[in-house]
Amino acid sequence: MIEAALVYARDHRRQYLAALVELLRIPSVSMEPEHGADMEDAADWLAEYLKRMGMTRVEMLPTQGFPVVYGEWLGAGEDAPTLLAYGHYDVQPVDPVEEWLTPPFEPTIRGDDIFCRGASDDKGQLFAVLAAVEAYLRAAGRLPVNVKIMLEGEEELSSPHMAAFIERHHQQLAADAILICDEAVLDPQTPLVMYGVRGSLYLEIDVRGPAQDLHSGTFGGAVDNPFNVLVRLLASLQDGRSRRVRIPGFYERVRPLDDAERALLAKVPVDDKAARHLAGVGVLAGEDGYTTVERVSVRPTLEIHGMPGGFTGAGNKTVIPARASAKVSMRLVPDQNPQEIRHLFEEHLRTMAPPTVDLTIRTLGASRPVVMDYRAVEIQAISRALEQGFGAPPVYFRGGGSLPIIADFQERFGVPIALIGFGMPDDNIHAPNEKYHLPNFYRGIETVIHYISILSEMQGD
Amino acid sequence: MIEAALVYARDHRRQYLAALVELLRIPSVSMEPEHGADMEDAADWLAEYLKRMGMTRVEMLPTQGFPVVYGEWLGAGEDAPTLLAYGHYDVQPVDPVEEWLTPPFEPTIRGDDIFCRGASDDKGQLFAVLAAVEAYLRAAGRLPVNVKIMLEGEEELSSPHMAAFIERHHQQLAADAILICDEAVLDPQTPLVMYGVRGSLYLEIDVRGPAQDLHSGTFGGAVDNPFNVLVRLLASLQDGRSRRVRIPGFYERVRPLDDAERALLAKVPVDDKAARHLAGVGVLAGEDGYTTVERVSVRPTLEIHGMPGGFTGAGNKTVIPARASAKVSMRLVPDQNPQEIRHLFEEHLRTMAPPTVDLTIRTLGASRPVVMDYRAVEIQAISRALEQGFGAPPVYFRGGGSLPIIADFQERFGVPIALIGFGMPDDNIHAPNEKYHLPNFYRGIETVIHYISILSEMQGD
Repeated sequence: MIEAALVYARDHRRQYLAALVELLRIPSVSMEPEHGADMEDAADWLAEYLKRMGMTRVEMLPTQGFPVVYGEWLGAGEDAPTLLAYGHYDVQPVDPVEEWLTPPFEPTIRGDDIFCRGASDDKGQLFAVLAAVEAYLRAAGRLPVNVKIMLEGEEELSSPHMAAFIERHHQQLAADAILICDEAVLDPQTPLVMYGVRGSLYLEIDVRGPAQDLHSGTFGGAVDNPFNVLVRLLASLQDGRSRRVRIPGFYERVRPLDDAERALLAKVPVDDKAARHLAGVGVLAGEDGYTTVERVSVRPTLEIHGMPGGFTGAGNKTVIPARASAKVSMRLVPDQNPQEIRHLFEEHLRTMAPPTVDLTIRTLGASRPVVMDYRAVEIQAISRALEQGFGAPPVYFRGGGSLPIIADFQERFGVPIALIGFGMPDDNIHAPNEKYHLPNFYRGIETVIHYISILSEMQGD
Repeated sequence: MIEAALVYARDHRRQYLAALVELLRIPSVSMEPEHGADMEDAADWLAEYLKRMGMTRVEMLPTQGFPVVYGEWLGAGEDAPTLLAYGHYDVQPVDPVEEWLTPPFEPTIRGDDIFCRGASDDKGQLFAVLAAVEAYLRAAGRLPVNVKIMLEGEEELSSPHMAAFIERHHQQLAADAILICDEAVLDPQTPLVMYGVRGSLYLEIDVRGPAQDLHSGTFGGAVDNPFNVLVRLLASLQDGRSRRVRIPGFYERVRPLDDAERALLAKVPVDDKAARHLAGVGVLAGEDGYTTVERVSVRPTLEIHGMPGGFTGAGNKTVIPARASAKVSMRLVPDQNPQEIRHLFEEHLRTMAPPTVDLTIRTLGASRPVVMDYRAVEIQAISRALEQGFGAPPVYFRGGGSLPIIADFQERFGVPIALIGFGMPDDNIHAPNEKYHLPNFYRGIETVIHYISILSEMQGD
């Protein structure tokens, strides 16, 4: 049964690629209201594909935001295990658009890579799952396990409605195993099993001073400039030498790294030279006392993403802006709690802010950090599948990015989640020229076929 | 002769206003390349007006940038004094354009004010000079002094070509008195004589880190984020408590304020309540040890105007930007030297910058600070004219803004410059909803008529 599915998948790579190209062309940017119709198109396209590939029940499940596309095939029977596979069809914005070598929504193959926004994050990966399930159904007429597929449209918005959605649909979604393909391998010979993800907290800080913009010739020296104040506030958040976050209490709940896990992470074959190359920097920098691998996985961090406001055009306009803002996010690790960190952050800034300005802080996104037991049987199953698909045993790692859904799933279903990916570290996700390595796409399809087969040997509920 | 001119000016207010409206409609934004043709239109309009009002020689004098519009009437003879009047026909950009109540280049009268970009800075003021000279010529057929008028097109770019221009044309421009109307009164009953201006130094700081934007999930914690670095650099420039600039050597050449001048400035009738109202702030803030009036006139300052780069759109994109920038300017006071301050600034930032980033600093504008002897006869002449025009003796003040041309004129001609203005402190110059108080416009015209008359009693060279 598995052999036929593998042969089918190999024989249909061209068709799979053609379908992926169709999906990639749809600019489903959830963050930008002007792409509302595109979001609908992407959801419709996926629902149509799920039907065509043989899912017996396909639904568009509404949320308060964009809908979840849901498909299921439960023909394996009540005694067979049930797999729930998750993916997301929304993509990041494309700016700075001028830095793209080819238009962001015109899928373009150069060498072994396909360039397009969303190619790696996550359309190319979710589609590998669809292709694997399709191959099984076409080649064998059936699956050895029950399969439920849910495709979200708001992952790039930090999945604001997923917790409520999972709660509402938990019976429909119930499963013995959960698969999420939204990560990366280290290189095509080194797949990864992610046994955790960082959480995140994304804030917008707003500092308001004068009622309106002032001329710095007339008023300069007599009023606090909101940008001058804001840079002082922001500079207070992180120590310039140790790179440690200076918000009081920030590290209080961070689990210390034990020796066993430190040894496990030391096996991740990324040395600093490779990391420099991947990041495109001459010199790495991070928190004192931790390796590069630890810094991007088990340690929290703080980033300023941009500072809207004031005069940013060409030339030398001498304005004291009425308002200065900053987009700031933190990656959180177990057991930091986003709500608590939000509170500490605000408390710290309010203590620092002078009485000359009004400070407001808005939450734009939040997700809890998760760590799972890497020795669990569910994690070992995906590990074996990756070894089959990529021809090499995986390395164990904790994801530096955030997938809010992981915490939501864990809380509801209590099973360790198979979190893997077919992307590459230099895929430029969330940046210009996003790409996806096609050999990984095909290996990914085979990995999922193997995973389904391995699961079928496990006991259902 | 002066009476006839004053009567003419009063009788023709409607015509003067209509002409000013024409000039205001031309969006002559020197900073924005798309307004190149508008700059030309504004220069042509002025050359045409200078001819029509009776200037005997009108020229478009080229510079490396926008031309100087020049007109002269030398019919008073070699024994009569010669007045050189300066103004500028370029205006500031209009953004944030959405904050304008009426379109920025549609002159709109509300109450006693006319709203338009450039209304106060400087078209409405330079036009008061034109109107005064025109009134004399029409009413009396001649002027009691020789008059040269030069109108620059690059003042809002910090007059990059004026020093060379004045050097090249110094014989043509030679004069016994220089008048610049580009400032403000305190209120319509309190005209001001400016016996100095602050200088300025406008820099753009660029911090480059990774070769391209990175995803903060993948790389966050392992690389220095250019914005995190930049806010630390910027925060190091000014003390958050004393508001003093912390660049080593910054204050070394600042002339201490002596008791006589401190007493003179204490007469400026602006208390902190009025200053708060003017600035639209609840709390003033500035350098420890100085009054508000001193802080905006005789003390240097440092402002961040905006911070281009990164992600500034709606939503929560988690990017580590490849680059972060800041537009920063300093107001300088005698005897600070912009070149020297530029050097100290760069030296300080280079000492602070970590090796993880590339730092570049670009000069976008620079002008020297000037202070003149407020007891000089030339300053006393304009003081008397203001008293006649506004019906109240002027207050002595040093301008907080920068007029590079002042230093250029002083250096070349060695005469104290009559620096006054008909704007108001809340004219929103360099900000949305710039306006000009029309009663000041008419008083300004009469002030210049009086000034010409007073000058005619002075001895020519």
